[in-house]
Amino acid sequence: MASPQSSFLRALYESWSNRMAANPGLTIADLRSLFDEWHQPTLEPRDVTYKSDVLAGVEAVWALPLAADARKVILYVHGGGFAVGSSASHRKLAGHVASHLGANAVVIDYRRAPEHPFPAQVEDSTAVYKELLERGFNPADIVTCGDSAGGNLAISTVLKLRQDGVPLPGAVIAFSPWLDMEHIGQTLETNAATDALVNKALLQGMSAMFLGDKGSPTEPLANPLRADFNGFPRLYVNAGESETLLDNALDLERIAREAGVSVTLSVVPAMQHVFPFLAGRASEADEELRRIASWFKGV
Amino acid sequence: MASPQSSFLRALYESWSNRMAANPGLTIADLRSLFDEWHQPTLEPRDVTYKSDVLAGVEAVWALPLAADARKVILYVHGGGFAVGSSASHRKLAGHVASHLGANAVVIDYRRAPEHPFPAQVEDSTAVYKELLERGFNPADIVTCGDSAGGNLAISTVLKLRQDGVPLPGAVIAFSPWLDMEHIGQTLETNAATDALVNKALLQGMSAMFLGDKGSPTEPLANPLRADFNGFPRLYVNAGESETLLDNALDLERIAREAGVSVTLSVVPAMQHVFPFLAGRASEADEELRRIASWFKGV
Repeated sequence: MASPQSSFLRALYESWSNRMAANPGLTIADLRSLFDEWHQPTLEPRDVTYKSDVLAGVEAVWALPLAADARKVILYVHGGGFAVGSSASHRKLAGHVASHLGANAVVIDYRRAPEHPFPAQVEDSTAVYKELLERGFNPADIVTCGDSAGGNLAISTVLKLRQDGVPLPGAVIAFSPWLDMEHIGQTLETNAATDALVNKALLQGMSAMFLGDKGSPTEPLANPLRADFNGFPRLYVNAGESETLLDNALDLERIAREAGVSVTLSVVPAMQHVFPFLAGRASEADEELRRIASWFKGV
Repeated sequence: MASPQSSFLRALYESWSNRMAANPGLTIADLRSLFDEWHQPTLEPRDVTYKSDVLAGVEAVWALPLAADARKVILYVHGGGFAVGSSASHRKLAGHVASHLGANAVVIDYRRAPEHPFPAQVEDSTAVYKELLERGFNPADIVTCGDSAGGNLAISTVLKLRQDGVPLPGAVIAFSPWLDMEHIGQTLETNAATDALVNKALLQGMSAMFLGDKGSPTEPLANPLRADFNGFPRLYVNAGESETLLDNALDLERIAREAGVSVTLSVVPAMQHVFPFLAGRASEADEELRRIASWFKGV
Protein backbone atom coordinates (compact mmCIF):
# COMPACT_ATOMS: atom_id res chain seq x y z
CA MET A 1 0.00 0.00 0.00
CA ALA A 2 1.23 3.48 -0.81
CA SER A 3 2.49 5.58 2.11
CA PRO A 4 0.27 8.53 3.12
CA GLN A 5 3.17 10.85 2.29
CA SER A 6 3.28 9.64 -1.30
CA SER A 7 -0.19 11.07 -1.96
CA PHE A 8 1.47 14.50 -2.21
CA LEU A 9 2.60 13.72 -5.77
CA ARG A 10 -0.76 12.36 -6.86
CA ALA A 11 -2.50 15.44 -5.45
CA LEU A 12 -0.08 17.73 -7.28
CA TYR A 13 -0.71 15.90 -10.55
CA GLU A 14 -4.47 16.06 -9.99
CA SER A 15 -4.24 19.80 -9.40
CA TRP A 16 -2.26 20.25 -12.63
CA SER A 17 -4.71 18.13 -14.61
CA ASN A 18 -7.59 20.20 -13.24
CA ARG A 19 -5.85 23.50 -13.97
CA MET A 20 -4.98 22.47 -17.53
CA ALA A 21 -8.53 21.27 -18.15
CA ALA A 22 -10.06 24.43 -16.67
CA ASN A 23 -8.00 26.87 -18.71
CA PRO A 24 -7.24 25.77 -22.28
CA GLY A 25 -5.73 29.25 -22.80
CA LEU A 26 -2.61 28.43 -20.78
CA THR A 27 0.40 29.30 -22.92
CA ILE A 28 3.62 27.35 -23.06
CA ALA A 29 5.05 29.96 -20.66
CA ASP A 30 2.18 29.30 -18.24
CA LEU A 31 2.69 25.54 -18.55
CA ARG A 32 6.40 25.94 -17.79
CA SER A 33 5.51 27.85 -14.63
CA LEU A 34 3.02 25.16 -13.67
CA PHE A 35 5.42 22.26 -14.24
CA ASP A 36 8.15 24.04 -12.30
CA GLU A 37 6.02 23.15 -9.26
CA TRP A 38 7.47 19.65 -9.75
CA HIS A 39 10.00 20.59 -7.09
CA GLN A 40 7.30 20.80 -4.43
CA PRO A 41 7.10 17.10 -3.46
CA THR A 42 10.86 17.00 -2.86
CA LEU A 43 12.25 18.12 0.48
CA GLU A 44 15.63 19.83 0.50
CA PRO A 45 18.45 17.27 0.53
CA ARG A 46 20.82 17.99 3.42
CA ASP A 47 24.49 18.95 3.05
CA VAL A 48 24.33 19.86 -0.63
CA THR A 49 25.55 23.17 -2.05
CA TYR A 50 24.72 24.50 -5.52
CA LYS A 51 26.43 26.46 -8.25
CA SER A 52 25.12 28.12 -11.41
CA ASP A 53 27.23 27.34 -14.47
CA VAL A 54 27.26 27.31 -18.26
CA LEU A 55 28.63 24.24 -20.09
CA ALA A 56 28.98 24.26 -23.87
CA GLY A 57 26.62 27.21 -23.97
CA VAL A 58 23.98 25.40 -21.90
CA GLU A 59 22.92 26.92 -18.57
CA ALA A 60 23.05 24.48 -15.69
CA VAL A 61 22.93 24.11 -11.92
CA TRP A 62 25.41 21.93 -10.08
CA ALA A 63 24.30 19.99 -7.00
CA LEU A 64 27.41 19.42 -4.91
CA PRO A 65 27.03 17.12 -1.89
CA LEU A 66 29.63 17.96 0.75
CA ALA A 67 30.59 14.28 0.86
CA ALA A 68 30.73 13.72 -2.91
CA ASP A 69 33.63 12.11 -4.72
CA ALA A 70 34.42 15.05 -7.00
CA ARG A 71 35.70 12.70 -9.72
CA LYS A 72 32.21 11.32 -10.24
CA VAL A 73 29.50 13.30 -11.99
CA ILE A 74 25.85 12.77 -12.85
CA LEU A 75 24.70 14.49 -16.03
CA TYR A 76 21.07 15.06 -15.01
CA VAL A 77 18.60 15.59 -17.86
CA HIS A 78 15.24 16.81 -16.54
CA GLY A 79 11.84 15.64 -17.72
CA GLY A 80 8.80 17.57 -18.91
CA GLY A 81 7.93 16.32 -22.38
CA PHE A 82 10.98 18.04 -23.91
CA ALA A 83 9.00 21.29 -23.53
CA VAL A 84 8.66 22.09 -19.81
CA GLY A 85 10.62 21.32 -16.64
CA SER A 86 13.93 22.95 -15.73
CA SER A 87 16.90 22.93 -13.41
CA ALA A 88 14.60 24.63 -10.90
CA SER A 89 12.01 21.84 -10.91
CA HIS A 90 14.67 19.14 -10.65
CA ARG A 91 17.41 20.69 -8.47
CA LYS A 92 16.38 18.99 -5.25
CA LEU A 93 15.75 15.62 -6.94
CA ALA A 94 19.20 15.76 -8.53
CA GLY A 95 20.66 16.70 -5.15
CA HIS A 96 19.11 13.61 -3.58
CA VAL A 97 20.39 11.36 -6.37
CA ALA A 98 23.85 12.94 -6.06
CA SER A 99 23.92 12.43 -2.30
CA HIS A 100 22.89 8.80 -2.60
CA LEU A 101 25.45 8.09 -5.32
CA GLY A 102 28.26 10.07 -3.65
CA ALA A 103 28.77 12.13 -6.81
CA ASN A 104 28.21 15.68 -7.98
CA ALA A 105 25.32 16.31 -10.37
CA VAL A 106 24.82 18.90 -13.08
CA VAL A 107 21.22 19.65 -14.09
CA ILE A 108 21.17 21.13 -17.57
CA ASP A 109 18.68 23.59 -19.05
CA TYR A 110 18.73 22.17 -22.58
CA ARG A 111 16.75 23.94 -25.30
CA ARG A 112 13.07 23.06 -25.15
CA ALA A 113 10.33 22.39 -27.68
CA PRO A 114 8.38 23.78 -29.43
CA GLU A 115 10.84 26.64 -30.05
CA HIS A 116 13.58 24.03 -30.43
CA PRO A 117 12.35 20.66 -31.72
CA PHE A 118 14.33 17.39 -31.94
CA PRO A 119 17.31 17.01 -32.08
CA ALA A 120 18.13 20.24 -30.17
CA GLN A 121 17.76 18.49 -26.80
CA VAL A 122 20.14 15.60 -27.52
CA GLU A 123 22.57 17.99 -29.21
CA ASP A 124 22.74 20.03 -26.02
CA SER A 125 23.13 17.03 -23.72
CA THR A 126 25.90 15.49 -25.85
CA ALA A 127 27.66 18.88 -26.03
CA VAL A 128 27.59 19.08 -22.24
CA TYR A 129 28.93 15.52 -21.99
CA LYS A 130 31.84 16.42 -24.25
CA GLU A 131 32.47 19.52 -22.15
CA LEU A 132 32.64 17.29 -19.07
CA LEU A 133 35.30 15.20 -20.83
CA GLU A 134 37.20 18.40 -21.65
CA ARG A 135 36.99 19.39 -17.99
CA GLY A 136 38.83 16.17 -17.17
CA PHE A 137 36.14 13.71 -16.13
CA ASN A 138 36.70 10.08 -17.12
CA PRO A 139 33.84 8.60 -19.15
CA ALA A 140 33.55 5.71 -16.70
CA ASP A 141 32.95 8.22 -13.88
CA ILE A 142 30.02 9.87 -15.68
CA VAL A 143 26.41 8.76 -15.22
CA THR A 144 23.62 10.05 -17.41
CA CYS A 145 20.38 10.24 -15.44
CA GLY A 146 16.95 11.61 -16.21
CA ASP A 147 13.23 11.24 -15.69
CA SER A 148 10.32 11.01 -18.12
CA ALA A 149 11.43 12.78 -21.33
CA GLY A 150 14.76 13.24 -19.54
CA GLY A 151 14.95 9.47 -19.12
CA ASN A 152 14.68 9.30 -22.89
CA LEU A 153 17.47 11.88 -23.20
CA ALA A 154 19.69 10.09 -20.66
CA ILE A 155 19.54 7.15 -23.08
CA SER A 156 19.52 8.96 -26.44
CA THR A 157 22.54 10.97 -25.34
CA VAL A 158 24.49 7.72 -25.05
CA LEU A 159 23.18 6.44 -28.40
CA LYS A 160 24.31 9.71 -30.00
CA LEU A 161 27.73 9.54 -28.34
CA ARG A 162 28.16 6.00 -29.68
CA GLN A 163 27.23 7.31 -33.15
CA ASP A 164 29.84 10.07 -32.75
CA GLY A 165 32.53 7.64 -31.57
CA VAL A 166 32.84 9.28 -28.17
CA PRO A 167 33.70 7.10 -25.12
CA LEU A 168 30.48 6.19 -23.31
CA PRO A 169 29.51 6.93 -19.70
CA GLY A 170 29.81 4.25 -17.05
CA ALA A 171 26.12 3.97 -16.25
CA VAL A 172 22.67 5.23 -17.18
CA ILE A 173 19.65 5.78 -14.92
CA ALA A 174 16.13 6.38 -16.22
CA PHE A 175 13.21 7.24 -13.92
CA SER A 176 9.83 6.57 -15.57
CA PRO A 177 11.28 7.11 -19.05
CA TRP A 178 9.03 8.31 -21.86
CA LEU A 179 10.37 6.59 -24.96
CA ASP A 180 7.37 5.56 -27.07
CA MET A 181 6.79 8.44 -29.48
CA GLU A 182 4.30 6.24 -31.39
CA HIS A 183 1.93 6.07 -28.39
CA ILE A 184 1.43 2.33 -28.82
CA GLY A 185 2.13 1.12 -25.29
CA GLN A 186 -0.78 -0.83 -23.82
CA THR A 187 -0.53 0.75 -20.35
CA LEU A 188 -1.56 4.03 -21.99
CA GLU A 189 -5.01 2.45 -21.91
CA THR A 190 -4.84 -0.06 -19.07
CA ASN A 191 -3.43 2.44 -16.53
CA ALA A 192 -5.41 5.45 -17.76
CA ALA A 193 -7.59 5.37 -14.66
CA THR A 194 -4.71 5.26 -12.16
CA ASP A 195 -2.25 7.78 -13.65
CA ALA A 196 -3.12 11.24 -12.30
CA LEU A 197 -1.13 13.19 -14.90
CA VAL A 198 0.05 11.42 -18.03
CA ASN A 199 -2.47 10.47 -20.73
CA LYS A 200 -2.35 9.87 -24.45
CA ALA A 201 -3.65 13.34 -25.37
CA LEU A 202 -1.00 15.07 -23.27
CA LEU A 203 1.73 12.88 -24.79
CA GLN A 204 0.47 13.47 -28.32
CA GLY A 205 0.62 17.22 -27.76
CA MET A 206 4.15 16.97 -26.43
CA SER A 207 5.47 14.58 -29.10
CA ALA A 208 4.05 16.92 -31.77
CA MET A 209 6.04 19.82 -30.29
CA PHE A 210 9.13 17.65 -29.87
CA LEU A 211 9.16 16.07 -33.33
CA GLY A 212 8.05 19.22 -35.14
CA ASP A 213 7.55 19.03 -38.89
CA LYS A 214 10.57 16.88 -39.64
CA GLY A 215 11.09 14.40 -36.80
CA SER A 216 9.90 10.79 -37.04
CA PRO A 217 8.33 8.90 -34.12
CA THR A 218 10.42 5.85 -35.07
CA GLU A 219 13.77 7.67 -35.25
CA PRO A 220 15.92 5.80 -32.68
CA LEU A 221 17.38 9.00 -31.18
CA ALA A 222 13.84 10.27 -30.56
CA ASN A 223 12.36 6.86 -29.67
CA PRO A 224 14.98 4.62 -28.05
CA LEU A 225 12.55 1.67 -28.14
CA ARG A 226 13.56 1.60 -31.84
CA ALA A 227 17.30 1.67 -31.06
CA ASP A 228 20.05 -0.95 -31.05
CA PHE A 229 21.42 -1.32 -27.50
CA ASN A 230 24.56 -3.30 -28.32
CA GLY A 231 27.45 -2.05 -26.21
CA PHE A 232 25.19 0.15 -24.06
CA PRO A 233 26.41 0.89 -20.49
CA ARG A 234 24.78 -0.76 -17.49
CA LEU A 235 21.30 0.60 -17.06
CA TYR A 236 18.87 1.15 -14.18
CA VAL A 237 15.27 1.80 -15.14
CA ASN A 238 12.24 2.26 -12.92
CA ALA A 239 8.57 3.13 -13.08
CA GLY A 240 5.53 3.35 -10.86
CA GLU A 241 3.02 0.57 -11.27
CA SER A 242 0.16 3.07 -11.67
CA GLU A 243 1.71 4.79 -14.66
CA THR A 244 0.44 4.96 -18.21
CA LEU A 245 4.12 4.93 -19.23
CA LEU A 246 4.86 1.68 -17.37
CA ASP A 247 5.19 -0.24 -20.65
CA ASN A 248 8.05 2.02 -21.69
CA ALA A 249 10.18 0.83 -18.78
CA LEU A 250 9.22 -2.82 -19.30
CA ASP A 251 9.93 -2.69 -23.04
CA LEU A 252 13.24 -0.92 -22.47
CA GLU A 253 14.34 -3.55 -19.97
CA ARG A 254 13.54 -6.36 -22.42
CA ILE A 255 15.16 -4.72 -25.44
CA ALA A 256 18.31 -3.80 -23.53
CA ARG A 257 18.57 -7.24 -21.88
CA GLU A 258 18.17 -9.00 -25.22
CA ALA A 259 21.02 -6.85 -26.57
CA GLY A 260 23.25 -8.08 -23.73
CA VAL A 261 23.09 -4.96 -21.56
CA SER A 262 23.34 -5.27 -17.78
CA VAL A 263 19.94 -3.86 -16.91
CA THR A 264 18.10 -3.54 -13.60
CA LEU A 265 14.37 -2.87 -13.52
CA SER A 266 12.44 -1.56 -10.52
CA VAL A 267 8.65 -1.26 -10.63
CA VAL A 268 7.17 0.11 -7.41
CA PRO A 269 3.53 -0.64 -6.56
CA ALA A 270 0.96 2.15 -6.46
CA MET A 271 3.46 4.84 -7.47
CA GLN A 272 2.86 7.70 -9.91
CA HIS A 273 5.05 9.05 -12.72
CA VAL A 274 8.60 9.90 -11.51
CA PHE A 275 7.89 9.00 -7.90
CA PRO A 276 11.51 9.76 -6.87
CA PHE A 277 10.27 13.37 -6.75
CA LEU A 278 9.03 12.32 -3.30
CA ALA A 279 12.62 12.11 -2.03
CA GLY A 280 12.90 13.19 1.59
CA ARG A 281 9.11 13.00 1.99
CA ALA A 282 7.95 9.44 1.22
CA SER A 283 9.63 6.13 2.00
CA GLU A 284 8.98 4.77 -1.51
CA ALA A 285 11.29 7.37 -3.04
CA ASP A 286 14.00 7.13 -0.41
CA GLU A 287 14.04 3.33 -0.60
CA GLU A 288 14.27 3.50 -4.39
CA LEU A 289 17.24 5.85 -4.17
CA ARG A 290 18.93 3.50 -1.70
CA ARG A 291 18.41 0.62 -4.16
CA ILE A 292 19.96 2.72 -6.92
CA ALA A 293 22.91 3.58 -4.69
CA SER A 294 23.49 -0.12 -3.95
CA TRP A 295 23.27 -0.90 -7.65
CA PHE A 296 25.64 1.95 -8.48
CA LYS A 297 28.24 1.10 -5.86
CA GLY A 298 27.92 -2.65 -6.26
CA VAL A 299 30.18 -2.90 -9.30
CA MET B 1 23.39 53.64 -15.89
CA ALA B 2 21.95 50.24 -15.21
CA SER B 3 24.21 47.25 -15.93
CA PRO B 4 23.24 45.11 -18.93
CA GLN B 5 22.81 42.17 -16.56
CA SER B 6 20.18 44.03 -14.54
CA SER B 7 17.83 44.04 -17.53
CA PHE B 8 17.03 40.39 -16.72
CA LEU B 9 14.68 41.49 -13.94
CA ARG B 10 12.95 44.13 -16.03
CA ALA B 11 12.44 41.61 -18.85
CA LEU B 12 10.99 39.08 -16.41
CA TYR B 13 8.56 41.68 -15.05
CA GLU B 14 7.57 42.72 -18.57
CA SER B 15 6.87 39.07 -19.46
CA TRP B 16 4.69 38.68 -16.34
CA SER B 17 2.81 41.89 -17.10
CA ASN B 18 2.18 40.70 -20.65
CA ARG B 19 1.06 37.24 -19.53
CA MET B 20 -1.31 38.64 -16.89
CA ALA B 21 -2.78 41.11 -19.41
CA ALA B 22 -3.15 38.41 -22.10
CA ASN B 23 -4.96 35.92 -19.89
CA PRO B 24 -7.39 37.42 -17.38
CA GLY B 25 -8.45 33.84 -16.59
CA LEU B 26 -5.27 33.09 -14.66
CA THR B 27 -6.29 31.72 -11.27
CA ILE B 28 -4.53 32.43 -7.99
CA ALA B 29 -2.82 29.02 -8.45
CA ASP B 30 -1.59 30.10 -11.89
CA LEU B 31 -0.37 33.43 -10.50
CA ARG B 32 1.53 31.62 -7.75
CA SER B 33 3.26 29.49 -10.39
CA LEU B 34 4.08 32.60 -12.39
CA PHE B 35 5.49 34.55 -9.44
CA ASP B 36 7.57 31.56 -8.37
CA GLU B 37 9.71 32.46 -11.41
CA TRP B 38 11.01 35.25 -9.19
CA HIS B 39 13.94 32.96 -8.43
CA GLN B 40 15.14 33.12 -12.03
CA PRO B 41 17.18 36.36 -11.86
CA THR B 42 19.14 35.03 -8.88
CA LEU B 43 22.17 32.81 -9.46
CA GLU B 44 22.85 30.08 -6.94
CA PRO B 45 24.81 31.43 -3.95
CA ARG B 46 27.93 29.34 -3.40
CA ASP B 47 28.67 27.29 -0.30
CA VAL B 48 25.14 27.30 1.07
CA THR B 49 23.20 24.16 2.06
CA TYR B 50 19.45 23.99 2.66
CA LYS B 51 17.07 22.21 4.98
CA SER B 52 13.29 21.81 4.96
CA ASP B 53 11.72 22.46 8.34
CA VAL B 54 8.48 23.30 10.12
CA LEU B 55 8.47 26.03 12.81
CA ALA B 56 5.34 26.69 14.86
CA GLY B 57 3.37 24.83 12.21
CA VAL B 58 4.79 26.96 9.38
CA GLU B 59 6.73 25.21 6.62
CA ALA B 60 10.09 26.77 5.92
CA VAL B 61 13.42 26.34 4.16
CA TRP B 62 16.69 27.07 5.93
CA ALA B 63 19.58 28.57 3.96
CA LEU B 64 22.76 27.55 5.79
CA PRO B 65 25.99 29.14 4.56
CA LEU B 66 28.95 26.92 5.41
CA ALA B 67 30.68 29.92 6.98
CA ALA B 68 27.68 31.21 8.95
CA ASP B 69 27.76 32.06 12.63
CA ALA B 70 25.07 29.60 13.72
CA ARG B 71 24.02 31.87 16.59
CA LYS B 72 22.75 34.47 14.13
CA VAL B 73 19.54 33.97 12.17
CA ILE B 74 17.62 35.90 9.54
CA LEU B 75 13.85 35.41 9.65
CA TYR B 76 13.18 35.93 5.93
CA VAL B 77 9.61 36.91 5.01
CA HIS B 78 9.07 36.67 1.25
CA GLY B 79 7.19 39.15 -0.90
CA GLY B 80 4.37 38.68 -3.37
CA GLY B 81 1.48 40.89 -2.26
CA PHE B 82 0.71 38.59 0.72
CA ALA B 83 -0.83 36.21 -1.87
CA VAL B 84 1.98 34.80 -4.04
CA GLY B 85 5.72 34.13 -3.66
CA SER B 86 7.16 31.31 -1.56
CA SER B 87 10.28 29.80 -0.07
CA ALA B 88 11.00 28.50 -3.59
CA SER B 89 10.99 31.94 -5.21
CA HIS B 90 13.13 33.45 -2.46
CA ARG B 91 15.49 30.62 -1.44
CA LYS B 92 18.47 31.84 -3.44
CA LEU B 93 17.94 35.49 -2.48
CA ALA B 94 17.81 34.51 1.18
CA GLY B 95 20.94 32.43 0.67
CA HIS B 96 22.79 35.45 -0.71
CA VAL B 97 21.64 37.66 2.16
CA ALA B 98 22.65 34.97 4.65
CA SER B 99 26.09 34.59 3.09
CA HIS B 100 26.69 38.34 3.14
CA LEU B 101 25.56 38.69 6.74
CA GLY B 102 27.37 35.55 7.96
CA ALA B 103 24.14 34.16 9.40
CA ASN B 104 21.68 31.37 8.70
CA ALA B 105 18.33 32.31 7.18
CA VAL B 106 14.92 30.69 7.44
CA VAL B 107 12.45 31.48 4.65
CA ILE B 108 8.93 30.90 5.90
CA ASP B 109 5.87 29.84 3.91
CA TYR B 110 3.35 31.86 5.89
CA ARG B 111 -0.36 31.51 5.05
CA ARG B 112 -1.29 33.55 2.00
CA ALA B 113 -4.27 35.66 0.94
CA PRO B 114 -7.00 35.43 -0.23
CA GLU B 115 -7.59 32.11 1.58
CA HIS B 116 -5.99 33.64 4.66
CA PRO B 117 -6.40 37.42 4.92
CA PHE B 118 -4.74 39.78 7.44
CA PRO B 119 -3.59 39.12 10.14
CA ALA B 120 -2.74 35.46 9.26
CA GLN B 121 0.63 36.49 7.79
CA VAL B 122 1.89 38.46 10.78
CA GLU B 123 0.51 35.82 13.14
CA ASP B 124 2.63 33.19 11.38
CA SER B 125 5.79 35.29 11.29
CA THR B 126 5.53 36.22 14.99
CA ALA B 127 4.84 32.56 15.86
CA VAL B 128 8.03 31.57 14.01
CA TYR B 129 9.97 34.31 15.81
CA LYS B 130 8.79 32.98 19.17
CA GLU B 131 9.77 29.47 18.07
CA LEU B 132 13.26 30.77 17.29
CA LEU B 133 13.46 32.15 20.84
CA GLU B 134 12.36 28.76 22.15
CA ARG B 135 15.09 27.13 20.08
CA GLY B 136 17.60 29.26 21.97
CA PHE B 137 18.34 32.21 19.71
CA ASN B 138 18.93 35.54 21.44
CA PRO B 139 16.63 38.31 20.22
CA ALA B 140 19.63 40.53 19.46
CA ASP B 141 20.96 37.84 17.10
CA ILE B 142 17.74 37.72 15.06
CA VAL B 143 17.16 39.90 11.98
CA THR B 144 13.79 40.14 10.31
CA CYS B 145 14.22 40.67 6.57
CA GLY B 146 11.80 40.76 3.70
CA ASP B 147 10.97 42.26 0.32
CA SER B 148 7.86 43.97 -1.02
CA ALA B 149 4.91 42.67 1.04
CA GLY B 150 7.56 40.72 2.96
CA GLY B 151 9.28 44.03 3.75
CA ASN B 152 5.99 45.09 5.29
CA LEU B 153 5.89 41.83 7.28
CA ALA B 154 9.52 42.17 8.41
CA ILE B 155 8.38 45.43 10.03
CA SER B 156 4.87 44.51 11.17
CA THR B 157 6.26 41.38 12.83
CA VAL B 158 8.35 43.63 15.08
CA LEU B 159 5.43 45.96 15.77
CA LYS B 160 3.33 42.94 16.78
CA LEU B 161 6.11 41.56 18.99
CA ARG B 162 6.32 44.95 20.75
CA GLN B 163 2.54 44.82 21.27
CA ASP B 164 2.92 41.31 22.73
CA GLY B 165 5.77 42.35 25.04
CA VAL B 166 8.27 40.01 23.36
CA PRO B 167 11.96 41.04 23.16
CA LEU B 168 12.62 42.60 19.75
CA PRO B 169 15.12 41.44 17.10
CA GLY B 170 18.44 43.22 16.71
CA ALA B 171 17.83 44.58 13.23
CA VAL B 172 15.29 44.83 10.42
CA ILE B 173 15.92 44.87 6.66
CA ALA B 174 13.27 45.81 4.10
CA PHE B 175 13.87 45.54 0.34
CA SER B 176 11.39 47.66 -1.66
CA PRO B 177 8.77 47.42 1.07
CA TRP B 178 5.10 47.71 0.18
CA LEU B 179 3.52 49.50 3.13
CA ASP B 180 0.94 51.92 1.73
CA MET B 181 -2.34 50.00 1.73
CA GLU B 182 -4.16 53.27 0.96
CA HIS B 183 -2.41 53.59 -2.43
CA ILE B 184 -1.69 57.28 -1.87
CA GLY B 185 2.05 57.36 -2.64
CA GLN B 186 2.87 59.84 -5.40
CA THR B 187 5.41 57.57 -7.12
CA LEU B 188 2.49 55.27 -7.96
CA GLU B 189 1.81 57.91 -10.63
CA THR B 190 5.18 59.52 -11.27
CA ASN B 191 7.03 56.18 -11.76
CA ALA B 192 4.19 54.38 -13.54
CA ALA B 193 6.08 54.53 -16.83
CA THR B 194 9.35 53.11 -15.47
CA ASP B 195 8.12 50.28 -13.19
CA ALA B 196 7.74 47.13 -15.30
CA LEU B 197 5.58 45.22 -12.81
CA VAL B 198 3.95 47.12 -9.98
CA ASN B 199 1.02 49.44 -10.69
CA LYS B 200 -1.94 50.76 -8.76
CA ALA B 201 -4.42 48.23 -10.19
CA LEU B 202 -2.21 45.27 -9.25
CA LEU B 203 -1.75 46.67 -5.73
CA GLN B 204 -5.45 47.33 -5.33
CA GLY B 205 -6.20 43.73 -6.26
CA MET B 206 -3.65 42.46 -3.77
CA SER B 207 -4.62 44.76 -0.90
CA ALA B 208 -8.27 43.70 -1.38
CA MET B 209 -7.24 40.03 -0.99
CA PHE B 210 -4.97 40.87 1.96
CA LEU B 211 -7.40 43.07 3.91
CA GLY B 212 -10.45 40.95 3.11
CA ASP B 213 -13.78 42.11 4.44
CA LYS B 214 -12.59 43.21 7.86
CA GLY B 215 -9.07 44.66 7.51
CA SER B 216 -8.50 48.42 7.39
CA PRO B 217 -5.91 50.05 5.09
CA THR B 218 -4.90 52.33 7.98
CA GLU B 219 -4.43 49.57 10.58
CA PRO B 220 -0.78 49.97 11.64
CA LEU B 221 -0.03 46.21 11.51
CA ALA B 222 -1.25 46.14 7.90
CA ASN B 223 0.12 49.57 6.94
CA PRO B 224 3.27 50.37 8.94
CA LEU B 225 3.30 53.90 7.53
CA ARG B 226 0.53 54.44 10.12
CA ALA B 227 2.57 52.92 12.95
CA ASP B 228 4.50 54.37 15.88
CA PHE B 229 8.21 53.47 15.51
CA ASN B 230 9.35 54.38 19.02
CA GLY B 231 11.82 51.78 20.26
CA PHE B 232 12.07 50.09 16.86
CA PRO B 233 15.36 48.22 16.10
CA ARG B 234 17.87 49.62 13.68
CA LEU B 235 16.48 49.49 10.18
CA TYR B 236 17.87 49.22 6.64
CA VAL B 237 15.46 50.07 3.84
CA ASN B 238 16.08 50.22 0.12
CA ALA B 239 14.26 50.71 -3.16
CA GLY B 240 14.95 51.06 -6.85
CA GLU B 241 14.63 54.56 -8.21
CA SER B 242 12.35 53.34 -11.03
CA GLU B 243 9.76 51.88 -8.68
CA THR B 244 6.17 52.92 -8.17
CA LEU B 245 6.69 51.91 -4.54
CA LEU B 246 9.69 54.23 -4.07
CA ASP B 247 7.65 56.59 -1.85
CA ASN B 248 7.04 53.74 0.61
CA ALA B 249 10.77 53.49 1.35
CA LEU B 250 11.21 57.27 1.55
CA ASP B 251 8.21 57.69 3.85
CA LEU B 252 9.33 54.82 6.05
CA GLU B 253 12.79 56.31 6.42
CA ARG B 254 11.36 59.68 7.45
CA ILE B 255 8.80 58.28 9.89
CA ALA B 256 11.32 55.95 11.54
CA ARG B 257 14.01 58.66 11.75
CA GLU B 258 11.59 61.12 13.31
CA ALA B 259 10.77 58.45 15.90
CA GLY B 260 14.46 58.21 16.80
CA VAL B 261 15.20 54.94 14.99
CA SER B 262 18.66 54.33 13.53
CA VAL B 263 17.63 54.00 9.90
CA THR B 264 19.70 53.63 6.71
CA LEU B 265 18.13 54.30 3.32
CA SER B 266 19.53 53.11 -0.01
CA VAL B 267 17.92 54.16 -3.29
CA VAL B 268 19.66 52.73 -6.33
CA PRO B 269 19.29 54.46 -9.69
CA ALA B 270 17.45 52.76 -12.55
CA MET B 271 16.58 49.67 -10.51
CA GLN B 272 13.26 47.81 -10.52
CA HIS B 273 11.21 46.43 -7.61
CA VAL B 274 13.29 44.17 -5.30
CA PHE B 275 16.44 44.45 -7.39
CA PRO B 276 18.44 42.29 -4.90
CA PHE B 277 16.82 39.39 -6.81
CA LEU B 278 19.69 40.02 -9.25
CA ALA B 279 22.21 38.71 -6.69
CA GLY B 280 25.05 36.85 -8.36
CA ARG B 281 24.02 38.24 -11.75
CA ALA B 282 24.15 42.06 -11.63
CA SER B 283 26.60 44.33 -9.83
CA GLU B 284 23.81 46.56 -8.48
CA ALA B 285 22.46 43.71 -6.35
CA ASP B 286 25.83 42.43 -5.18
CA GLU B 287 26.99 45.94 -4.25
CA GLU B 288 23.76 46.54 -2.33
CA LEU B 289 24.24 43.31 -0.39
CA ARG B 290 27.81 44.35 0.44
CA ARG B 291 26.49 47.68 1.75
CA ILE B 292 23.99 45.83 3.89
CA ALA B 293 26.71 43.53 5.23
CA SER B 294 28.84 46.57 6.18
CA TRP B 295 25.85 48.17 7.89
CA PHE B 296 25.04 44.91 9.69
CA LYS B 297 28.56 44.21 10.88
CA GLY B 298 29.40 47.86 11.59
CA VAL B 299 27.72 47.98 14.97
